[in-house]
Amino acid sequence: MTLSPTPRTQLRRKRDRQADDVRVLHAVLDEALLCHLGLVDDDGAPLVLPTMHARVGDVVYVHGSSGAASLARDREVCLTVTLLDGLVLARSVFSHSANYRSAVVRGRARRVTDPDEHERALEAVVEHLTPGQWDHARRPDRREAAATAVLALDLAEASVKVRQGPPGDPELVEQGDHRWAGVIPVRTVLGTPEPCPALPADVPVPEHVARWSVARP
Amino acid sequence: MTLSPTPRTQLRRKRDRQADDVRVLHAVLDEALLCHLGLVDDDGAPLVLPTMHARVGDVVYVHGSSGAASLARDREVCLTVTLLDGLVLARSVFSHSANYRSAVVRGRARRVTDPDEHERALEAVVEHLTPGQWDHARRPDRREAAATAVLALDLAEASVKVRQGPPGDPELVEQGDHRWAGVIPVRTVLGTPEPCPALPADVPVPEHVARWSVARP
Repeated sequence: MTLSPTPRTQLRRKRDRQADDVRVLHAVLDEALLCHLGLVDDDGAPLVLPTMHARVGDVVYVHGSSGAASLARDREVCLTVTLLDGLVLARSVFSHSANYRSAVVRGRARRVTDPDEHERALEAVVEHLTPGQWDHARRPDRREAAATAVLALDLAEASVKVRQGPPGDPELVEQGDHRWAGVIPVRTVLGTPEPCPALPADVPVPEHVARWSVARP
Repeated sequence: MTLSPTPRTQLRRKRDRQADDVRVLHAVLDEALLCHLGLVDDDGAPLVLPTMHARVGDVVYVHGSSGAASLARDREVCLTVTLLDGLVLARSVFSHSANYRSAVVRGRARRVTDPDEHERALEAVVEHLTPGQWDHARRPDRREAAATAVLALDLAEASVKVRQGPPGDPELVEQGDHRWAGVIPVRTVLGTPEPCPALPADVPVPEHVARWSVARP
């Protein structure tokens, strides 16, 4: 299955960096712990807010503040996710770059109001951030659910861009430029879980939390 | 020195998370390797693109594609930087959160055209990503400089938001809920430098690159 970019998600430059495979889009959305949601405020100015998300099939659910959710309702949004994989140190300043995978999803966000879909979306976000955590934690009651805004955004209009590999100016080596060039890898890692100070001392770290900390990286 | 938020950068909710100190804003911008630039396209829809930046005093310079730079010219932009510090696993799903530091800078971007400022801005971005790299690499020539768009954004209208610490539902422990809760720390780390395959085998990793890989974290 391939992405079908509309004119505005078709990259205008560096088209070789556009990955046509929807699996890459899904993988980027699934790996990222964080997304940035772009909105246009009442004065027509852009506003970009960090938040959490989860993908379920061809929909991405976004945990929104009530403010962001009201700004996003019935308006276009842009959800962008970026995984930084490396700093690309070339010979020439001009060829410096970054290795990354990024996804851009555009469209109208839908405020999730159906109670079942709302709960499934919250479950997806919690499970996305720490697999196994939904069954561990206390589920939201009706009041808590009502206070948690969730937006749904269809993946119909999405693009994904990937840059990997060494610096782009190897021809300079043949021209006698032997200064060092290469890539410094960048990774997001999870550390040792820190228990809440209010917790009784004899409560062990659950297996799903310990496993997650080890699994990433 | 404190930030002077305008009505639109004054947080409407969770005001206790707003850090008034401009030093926090600077520290967040200085630590982040990546930023997200929000624009409004010609159809009035938001567009959020990842890019690189560097702060010089009260200005943040943004490396822009020519497309983004032309969209941003004489228009409002929003530059958002987010450092994810931890996944906050509470007892209740409702109190799940993230530890993070984020900066939001709004205003009109200025396209940098003065050659001296343009070069200083590129230097700042290169040095921001890898200190010592500007003196190591080959400087841009006139053609390369002309092909590299740089935007300048004033920090006059900026806000910074910080959430740190344990989960926010310790009262549940007193109510007899002894399930595990805590924080999984999240960090961005740099790995061992990977030399460009085109490089002669006897070129060592420069000291500034080795030092940077070790310094972060």
